[in-house]
Amino acid sequence: MPPHAIQLPRNATGARFPAICAPLVGRTAQRLLDEVAVVAAKKPDILEWRVDFFEGIADTASMADLCGRIKAASGGIPLLVTRRSAREGGERIELTEAQVIALYAAVCRTGHVDLLDYEAGNAPAEVAEVREMTRAHRVQLLLSFHDFQSTPAVEAIADRFARAAQLGADIAKVAVMPRSMEDVLRLLEATQRASRELAIPVVSMSMGRLGAITRLCGWAFGSAMTFAIGESPSAPGQMAIEDVGAGLALLQKALRPDDL
Amino acid sequence: MPPHAIQLPRNATGARFPAICAPLVGRTAQRLLDEVAVVAAKKPDILEWRVDFFEGIADTASMADLCGRIKAASGGIPLLVTRRSAREGGERIELTEAQVIALYAAVCRTGHVDLLDYEAGNAPAEVAEVREMTRAHRVQLLLSFHDFQSTPAVEAIADRFARAAQLGADIAKVAVMPRSMEDVLRLLEATQRASRELAIPVVSMSMGRLGAITRLCGWAFGSAMTFAIGESPSAPGQMAIEDVGAGLALLQKALRPDDL
Repeated sequence: MPPHAIQLPRNATGARFPAICAPLVGRTAQRLLDEVAVVAAKKPDILEWRVDFFEGIADTASMADLCGRIKAASGGIPLLVTRRSAREGGERIELTEAQVIALYAAVCRTGHVDLLDYEAGNAPAEVAEVREMTRAHRVQLLLSFHDFQSTPAVEAIADRFARAAQLGADIAKVAVMPRSMEDVLRLLEATQRASRELAIPVVSMSMGRLGAITRLCGWAFGSAMTFAIGESPSAPGQMAIEDVGAGLALLQKALRPDDL
Repeated sequence: MPPHAIQLPRNATGARFPAICAPLVGRTAQRLLDEVAVVAAKKPDILEWRVDFFEGIADTASMADLCGRIKAASGGIPLLVTRRSAREGGERIELTEAQVIALYAAVCRTGHVDLLDYEAGNAPAEVAEVREMTRAHRVQLLLSFHDFQSTPAVEAIADRFARAAQLGADIAKVAVMPRSMEDVLRLLEATQRASRELAIPVVSMSMGRLGAITRLCGWAFGSAMTFAIGESPSAPGQMAIEDVGAGLALLQKALRPDDL
């Protein structure tokens, strides 16, 4: 049985597996919209707006407005909104967690956001609040864990996927940093296990140079989404979207998702 | 430390890692030489003449003569000669093992053969004889194990690599059949371990559709050679040499063999 794919609004008959997601990291509205124009032309399945890179993140009304402008400028590409915390590898921002949740609520209300990333390591009450809010607005919730220092044991990674599912995630994501190629195998093994055991799509990556092959091959172990550079990377080890597209096409001549 | 590369005669300053090897499976001299013309134009690092596919395998003098013709027709591409036994996935041939060894001796004497594949599962005396003969003619000996039914445990695969080294191999090769993607991870883990522990290059692949990613990514786990289709495949799961070349190029933008 092929692993669970991410269901995207404009692709009701089944999404590409894996979905290719390109991050947007512009710091101002002008740069962000310029970036959307460049990146959307490369036809990612999903655009991820990394709001922690955005200078005006504190202006909730403008942020909500920008969601619609990104959606329109991209020609309707499904939009994932992500505040990556500094603790998990993101940019430092001024907002309290309550303000981040208020921002999330505002962007969900616009109707232009399809997926929202929230870190599963936040307080359970916060996760529950974001879960409730995303459900109310039919936004898919991606609960994520990041370890920029190391790669936990297979069991510990599998637990993180399971924990995200337990917390009500629509999609569970784990990103880890390898120190060896054995670490890369660990991440793939845990992904494979989680993709079979959980009822939701899982997404994983081993970051940095050593983990680069997971950007191209993770889907063969059940990872439903891969992040690729449209214009600028958002994490170490990401490959250009052109390379990911070409690599997936040639690999999938030999092994199709249906074979898994 | 990067894993051991296969040292090739026309590339004394260091071979491409991984080396790309294209099989030749023509059944007659004419078809074989036509195949060489097509395949050599695609610039593999190594040509593997699978002599078990050749109808005239019993005519030792002609076989020896053909080695020189293949070498000339290919413009000097390093030549690997392989008799794959029916027991390990090759074509059925009429020769006794003694006759195969006599054939191997004859082709080694031509000076046109750079590498020779012999199955490590043969009788120790036979392996020793082939080891001695190849050493006398400065032909590199690749000792191989194949399992077309299943994938042994990591420890058992690692033992096979170690056994080849123990028997005096210049290169150790293990090819196995996966029944799941976990099997593919097992093969990669054992390859990684062997490539670090042994003083010789190791080569591995997980065959069939499920194993296809090892054709493109095995090098990241230490495998020094990948087999790719020039004109016709010699084993299940091989990808076209154009795809392997393109896939390696884009992966190696992110992860270089020196990073390993």
